[in-house]
Amino acid sequence: VTGLDQIAPETIAPLALGAGILGTGGGGDPYPNSLELRALLQTHPPVPVVGLAELPDDAVVVSVGGFGAPTVSFEKVGRGPATVRAVRALERVTGRTVTHIVPAEIGGGNALLPVSVAALAGLSVIDADGMGRAFPEAQMNTWCIAGLELTPAAFGDAHGNVTVVATADSPTSLERIARAAVVAMGASSGSAFPVMTGEECRYAAVPDSMTLALHIGEAVLAARAAHEDPAAAAAEVSGGRVLAEGKVVDVNRQTTGGFARGSVSLLTADGDIVVDFQNELLVARAGSEVLACVPDLISILERETGSAISTEHLRYGQRVSLLGIPAPAVLRTEAALAIVGPAAFGFTEDPAPIPGVYGGSRRR
Amino acid sequence: VTGLDQIAPETIAPLALGAGILGTGGGGDPYPNSLELRALLQTHPPVPVVGLAELPDDAVVVSVGGFGAPTVSFEKVGRGPATVRAVRALERVTGRTVTHIVPAEIGGGNALLPVSVAALAGLSVIDADGMGRAFPEAQMNTWCIAGLELTPAAFGDAHGNVTVVATADSPTSLERIARAAVVAMGASSGSAFPVMTGEECRYAAVPDSMTLALHIGEAVLAARAAHEDPAAAAAEVSGGRVLAEGKVVDVNRQTTGGFARGSVSLLTADGDIVVDFQNELLVARAGSEVLACVPDLISILERETGSAISTEHLRYGQRVSLLGIPAPAVLRTEAALAIVGPAAFGFTEDPAPIPGVYGGSRRR
Repeated sequence: VTGLDQIAPETIAPLALGAGILGTGGGGDPYPNSLELRALLQTHPPVPVVGLAELPDDAVVVSVGGFGAPTVSFEKVGRGPATVRAVRALERVTGRTVTHIVPAEIGGGNALLPVSVAALAGLSVIDADGMGRAFPEAQMNTWCIAGLELTPAAFGDAHGNVTVVATADSPTSLERIARAAVVAMGASSGSAFPVMTGEECRYAAVPDSMTLALHIGEAVLAARAAHEDPAAAAAEVSGGRVLAEGKVVDVNRQTTGGFARGSVSLLTADGDIVVDFQNELLVARAGSEVLACVPDLISILERETGSAISTEHLRYGQRVSLLGIPAPAVLRTEAALAIVGPAAFGFTEDPAPIPGVYGGSRRR
Repeated sequence: VTGLDQIAPETIAPLALGAGILGTGGGGDPYPNSLELRALLQTHPPVPVVGLAELPDDAVVVSVGGFGAPTVSFEKVGRGPATVRAVRALERVTGRTVTHIVPAEIGGGNALLPVSVAALAGLSVIDADGMGRAFPEAQMNTWCIAGLELTPAAFGDAHGNVTVVATADSPTSLERIARAAVVAMGASSGSAFPVMTGEECRYAAVPDSMTLALHIGEAVLAARAAHEDPAAAAAEVSGGRVLAEGKVVDVNRQTTGGFARGSVSLLTADGDIVVDFQNELLVARAGSEVLACVPDLISILERETGSAISTEHLRYGQRVSLLGIPAPAVLRTEAALAIVGPAAFGFTEDPAPIPGVYGGSRRR
């Protein structure tokens, strides 16, 4: 893996493309975040990217991302300044001055928002993240899996409201309280939590995420240029597999309790496939057969372009490729499956890996 | 007015009795708060009471109270430590060390909770409050009426969860966000906001509230001992009037959105009276005639004992006196009526004073 050393304007398009695929339908639409970052990089210098190996042990790192329902965030602007206000509130509460930004999740727009925050705050962003994909709930990250304290946790909206959950009796209490507060803030916010040391971040983070997203995006762009299958190219770079090709024939979607929940049905040559989602695509089934299941990554790509379709943009008639990507190993431990396995979403499926892609992930 | 100089165990009963009457049906049941304070004062010294005149200009004052649905708080214990955790969180956020506690509201259990907080924190409590009664919403207080910044505002529950609204774009946004967070915390919390200087508190507070509550309670106890009408005694001390006597014949009550909402019907010698409430009793009507209306105080007392009946304890068959007490003048300004007048609760009633008790309040 050749690491990124900075995010410049020309990095945005492939990064957004790859992050969209790693977003498994969620993580927020990369498009508005791309616009915001592109505008910022016209007036700010490129954002330095720091690998986990270079991160000082005593760095003060904060994980940032979008928190809310992607169906709503799609309609909102000004997420960067809102998230910076959350970071500043967290600095006030903790009395620590943040030195580095790490993405909470590499998926979707949440790969780009941290870069905007770093640009606005004059900080570096770390080539890593807290999920290796996107997940819908506050406690579903490698910070929690590693046993780091998630609070205090700050949430800022575009109107200047900032709420801090100072202490919580459990990670799920943080999720419940923060979700309620953010719904009252319009179901869209920028989050800043936890604050950690460089050493803690290196221990807990999924490494090289920005680089992986960029490489996936570059592979898709190269396949487009060569008139090859972009989904196959994304599978090759990510160690995944194209599970099916087909057409979207039905979408059920509700925005309830601060989430976009529902399912999408695909008509394929081998019959119907149904994929359930809660912000992110979680379980893909052909009849009773499970094709892929969280924590593994399930993405729906436009067949022609290889662009990921987020759950809020799924609609009847789209021609798509269904892509499965093995989760990073850190999401497959027993401790991780308790937090991000199918049971954590109310599914009874076995969290068995995607057939045909294991051995293991190419990712650590 | 002879000021209180400390709250000792023997002060609790009359203070709770008077605070219940000033609570206008809300402010939380004084009983569980009385038990908590009584237990604390067995192991802690009496809590010093400081009049507004004695308060140093540079004191760091925090207003504390219960925040949530009284129907729930009635079933919860440990509000004192929960509120202390909110105060500590506010100290961390602001970097200021609190020197004095002022009650957010003198009504109901919220007159006693601040004394418990002061006992636990080793601080003094101020003979004043932020409402001169009880009100249901976060922005309905004299701090807001005086234009003080309400945020940061901290809310702690009995399980150790603490949420801080660090900034809000308006006082009603604070209410909306805090209410949502507190509902997710079980609809019951101890609140700490705002932090203010002694000078600000002296400017904004309703003065001598603890003393008034104590005097009302003492008058009721004296009337009981003398077999006189306790409601008349409470009216005499508070400058109010007994509006009716009757029997509770119907109660509609729902706990929705973190509030106890509903209405109570009284059968009197002159016909039915209906009183609407949102945690607190707000408007009393005999047919289309308004007998009393928020911001004036409406209390329902047990006819025999003069004890206030909180809205969560109203039930069929109770023999009651309906008491009206004029609001302090600070709640009758144009700025105040916009925040705590009938329109703020969705009523179209004219906020005219209770007939027969004005001129003005005996209270400043």
